[in-house]
Amino acid sequence: MSSTKLFAVVAGAGPGTGKATALRFSKAYPVVLIARRPESYEEAVAEIKAAGGTAVGVSADASDAASLDAAFERIKTEVYPGHKLAVAVYNAAGGFMQKPFLETSVEELAGSLDGSVKGFFNFAQKTLPLLLETVETSPPHPPTLLVTGATASVRGSANFSTFAAAMFGRRGLAQSLAREFGPKGVHVAHAVIDGVIDIPRTKAYANVNGGVEDGKIRADAIAESYWHLHAQHRSAFTQEIDVRPFVEKF
Amino acid sequence: MSSTKLFAVVAGAGPGTGKATALRFSKAYPVVLIARRPESYEEAVAEIKAAGGTAVGVSADASDAASLDAAFERIKTEVYPGHKLAVAVYNAAGGFMQKPFLETSVEELAGSLDGSVKGFFNFAQKTLPLLLETVETSPPHPPTLLVTGATASVRGSANFSTFAAAMFGRRGLAQSLAREFGPKGVHVAHAVIDGVIDIPRTKAYANVNGGVEDGKIRADAIAESYWHLHAQHRSAFTQEIDVRPFVEKF
Amino acid sequence: MSSTKLFAVVAGAGPGTGKATALRFSKAYPVVLIARRPESYEEAVAEIKAAGGTAVGVSADASDAASLDAAFERIKTEVYPGHKLAVAVYNAAGGFMQKPFLETSVEELAGSLDGSVKGFFNFAQKTLPLLLETVETSPPHPPTLLVTGATASVRGSANFSTFAAAMFGRRGLAQSLAREFGPKGVHVAHAVIDGVIDIPRTKAYANVNGGVEDGKIRADAIAESYWHLHAQHRSAFTQEIDVRPFVEKF
Amino acid sequence: MSSTKLFAVVAGAGPGTGKATALRFSKAYPVVLIARRPESYEEAVAEIKAAGGTAVGVSADASDAASLDAAFERIKTEVYPGHKLAVAVYNAAGGFMQKPFLETSVEELAGSLDGSVKGFFNFAQKTLPLLLETVETSPPHPPTLLVTGATASVRGSANFSTFAAAMFGRRGLAQSLAREFGPKGVHVAHAVIDGVIDIPRTKAYANVNGGVEDGKIRADAIAESYWHLHAQHRSAFTQEIDVRPFVEKF
Repeated sequence: MSSTKLFAVVAGAGPGTGKATALRFSKAYPVVLIARRPESYEEAVAEIKAAGGTAVGVSADASDAASLDAAFERIKTEVYPGHKLAVAVYNAAGGFMQKPFLETSVEELAGSLDGSVKGFFNFAQKTLPLLLETVETSPPHPPTLLVTGATASVRGSANFSTFAAAMFGRRGLAQSLAREFGPKGVHVAHAVIDGVIDIPRTKAYANVNGGVEDGKIRADAIAESYWHLHAQHRSAFTQEIDVRPFVEKF
Repeated sequence: MSSTKLFAVVAGAGPGTGKATALRFSKAYPVVLIARRPESYEEAVAEIKAAGGTAVGVSADASDAASLDAAFERIKTEVYPGHKLAVAVYNAAGGFMQKPFLETSVEELAGSLDGSVKGFFNFAQKTLPLLLETVETSPPHPPTLLVTGATASVRGSANFSTFAAAMFGRRGLAQSLAREFGPKGVHVAHAVIDGVIDIPRTKAYANVNGGVEDGKIRADAIAESYWHLHAQHRSAFTQEIDVRPFVEKF
Repeated sequence: MSSTKLFAVVAGAGPGTGKATALRFSKAYPVVLIARRPESYEEAVAEIKAAGGTAVGVSADASDAASLDAAFERIKTEVYPGHKLAVAVYNAAGGFMQKPFLETSVEELAGSLDGSVKGFFNFAQKTLPLLLETVETSPPHPPTLLVTGATASVRGSANFSTFAAAMFGRRGLAQSLAREFGPKGVHVAHAVIDGVIDIPRTKAYANVNGGVEDGKIRADAIAESYWHLHAQHRSAFTQEIDVRPFVEKF
Repeated sequence: MSSTKLFAVVAGAGPGTGKATALRFSKAYPVVLIARRPESYEEAVAEIKAAGGTAVGVSADASDAASLDAAFERIKTEVYPGHKLAVAVYNAAGGFMQKPFLETSVEELAGSLDGSVKGFFNFAQKTLPLLLETVETSPPHPPTLLVTGATASVRGSANFSTFAAAMFGRRGLAQSLAREFGPKGVHVAHAVIDGVIDIPRTKAYANVNGGVEDGKIRADAIAESYWHLHAQHRSAFTQEIDVRPFVEKF
């Protein structure tokens, strides 16, 4: 067991999976929460601190490499100097949209690809070198890069053209990174979140799974699975999990 | 939290995944270990007891419905009377065999199907009614049926004809059960174990992944993932995970 | 182009895909139709003859190796002596059944596995040696083994436990054979037929796809795809196709 | 059978699949070949004319919507006025590249996404409205949109990060379009080309599949499968095929 100081970073740290994951990882590590706007991470930062953890929010747009460069420079020099990165989570939602294809613009496609593929690409470019450095410090758990997917990552449904393009693309990128960086000791895993997350914004979706209790996914339950993925021994890595409510049709 | 007395059952409780899973679940529940021959479970039973847990071995052949009936009757009346089933694991290895197809006999096919499909079918027939009963007792974790798969569950490789037929079949059965029993509150999950388990019998396989450390899967690491699957909240069930060493080609 | 005399064999030659495939292949080759009972192939044999083709029906049960041995002995010595096998199609339907799992018997599972897995196994054992012999004769199209799958080959739906087990198993076997025999010049391909075939028995299913025209699959359209698979150049083999009506949800 | 005048369009009409597909479709329809530079389509246009077919090359960049708009305006008013679109093929290769992820730039990612996803998106935007119009004319074959994929469409390999991201994305988009436009009568299909095409540029790759004859894919064999997909009856559409040499490992 090393005495290295470690930290976690969660990008896309809004309500739901991002916030819950940051809370879960804050039980083990100081956490950086990245979102475009402070409103997205302020609540999570406060909750982590209230629970006795350490958290800092950093505003950045992952789809903009320069913005992300600045964020990581700040993390390195100001936020957690001397810390090694234990786990990085990319959870930014890129352009979920339900719309007939012929009413969809190429700008909407670009928006989806920016958030879901380019953002994850940039985030992986910044975090994988740090995670590789951590490998050498014999951390308690293998350094981990986690990325959130959706039903659209594995199924191109009608009227979800740009979302399917973007989420399939993100999954392909994650798979390629898993095969390249796994043998170097970094665990790259992808989660297919197949259902509606139970957050304030979705409270109104009364019809999800007939309104049955637990018919929407608890974000803290996803966070437990993310923690488990991070904690897996390197002889037994999982590359992909699916997560859905017990009543979800699939 | 209920005060119901719970237990776990692991079929195919030989060295490796079966034994490790029994050990892991024994931290939470009394365990029944099922195997055809006592030699297969005796060591695990002794280890569980030495660690302060409760375990009983029962000899039965899952591919023989009558044999399994007798085992479960004994469990109900003698072994853990009044207990509810928390989790059932089917781990019996059915007929792994590498052989050119035209040298393979229909008896060898039948042997594979018996162990991998019929055995799991029988085991599910006995355990699902018990797991459904447990749902009503509000256990701490959703009642769970776990089944072990292999690379051959998702890839029919050359010279693995009977193993692929049997393991694909087992996976199809598990998927169907997940969709039927999930909405009733029972979590059915399938694990694709993609690599060689690190057990005494495989110590000789020096060439696996070039002999690199952790190039074979630690059985206790699989057991941790099995426990995680069992502990998942019902709003966030995983139906399938893959597990492989960090250096495994896939 | 060789002058070798060739023939085709279709097992599971009842109405629908089997009959249509036999008709399609009879445009190029004399055909043997195999079914358990003469009623199943008599109509197809008559239609082929009426169209100027050559066809012989042979009664055999593919799930019984001895029965199939006798059939192929008869084909070799009596039916088409001196002919080489160009293409073999396994189309026997093994135990489609929709039923709650806990009402399903192990005998019903065995019935499904016998028809869908063991039958195909036996059929492949008899036909692959013949197809390998044909490779050496430089036939106009690569010798081909085709096997019919279903939605249940790739999706284990609720209440289709035995069908899913059997059809997943059949697909796994087909994949393994494709990887073993492809490099030897035999094309093994699997077709996922995802929808209801338009045959007399299904005329009553008025609700399929809302009763829309062409909402059920035309068997002769499947047969065209089977012919195409057979006719593919060996530098461009397809291992698996899906086939479904344009209006089918998937 | 209608008397409507029909045409085909092939984008990405360079040597290999594009040229071969244009040649194959020119047996049935006048063809438009689209490529960025005339050098890419001139040879194919000449060959089609030499064989008695009709072909016109149009220079356009599919990743630039305005460029494609202009091309289709020209096709409508000058090239084939009054014709309906029978089949559209998107075959443009977007940024195949093998490179360690950390040496890959975000510009290289953008290049891949532009060619493989945005280009196909733009092409589908232009052709689907035309294909929908054709549905109403009762053409001999269902109007068809075909798109070429690769191994990287279904497998994210190490060191192929941008290619996997782009080709997964393209496949997701194709799947979504198939589900949206299939029920409207337009056949959308995706081909996973899993191997090296046998073209002048790849003659030098002597090691592909050990240099065995037919170890590289003949482009005209792919074109036959594309024609077959186009010719499928609408009750029996295939959404995805794989194509690989008989000796290819997969």
